[in-house]
Amino acid sequence: MSSTFKAMVRVFLKAGVLDVQGKAVEQALHGLGFPGVADVRVGRLIQFEVAAADADEARTQVEAMCRRLLANPVIESFEVEIA
Amino acid sequence: MSSTFKAMVRVFLKAGVLDVQGKAVEQALHGLGFPGVADVRVGRLIQFEVAAADADEARTQVEAMCRRLLANPVIESFEVEIA
Repeated sequence: MSSTFKAMVRVFLKAGVLDVQGKAVEQALHGLGFPGVADVRVGRLIQFEVAAADADEARTQVEAMCRRLLANPVIESFEVEIA
Repeated sequence: MSSTFKAMVRVFLKAGVLDVQGKAVEQALHGLGFPGVADVRVGRLIQFEVAAADADEARTQVEAMCRRLLANPVIESFEVEIA
């Protein structure tokens, strides 16, 4: 029997990789009058339901999805949350 | 005196708005052999540091940033986490 789990995946550029989008957001926020903003990083958030026998199997499946489609392991890191 | 807080902003399309990117990811995952995936929603994650007198002021500032730049309030909703 399989249950449905909620998966939340967070994908960010790895620490050493220049985050151009983050830099653009940072400059725009400074320009809008928020000078106290620093170290902006922009990432993706992917939320979905997944059918699996248990939470462990759901996590294994979702990690495989990250490596094959959701993240680019060369430059991005990901975190998986199963609920 | 001001301290530095970590802000995490999650931006998603509102529930009634068609998430085309989410649909594309869902079909791609089905095609890759993950048939148990449903209800995929893709959002943005913006993480940064913000200087403020206290956590309440930091939250007020970050919510203003969301309304003015980080989210499109017509079709998107946002959640702010201050740590």
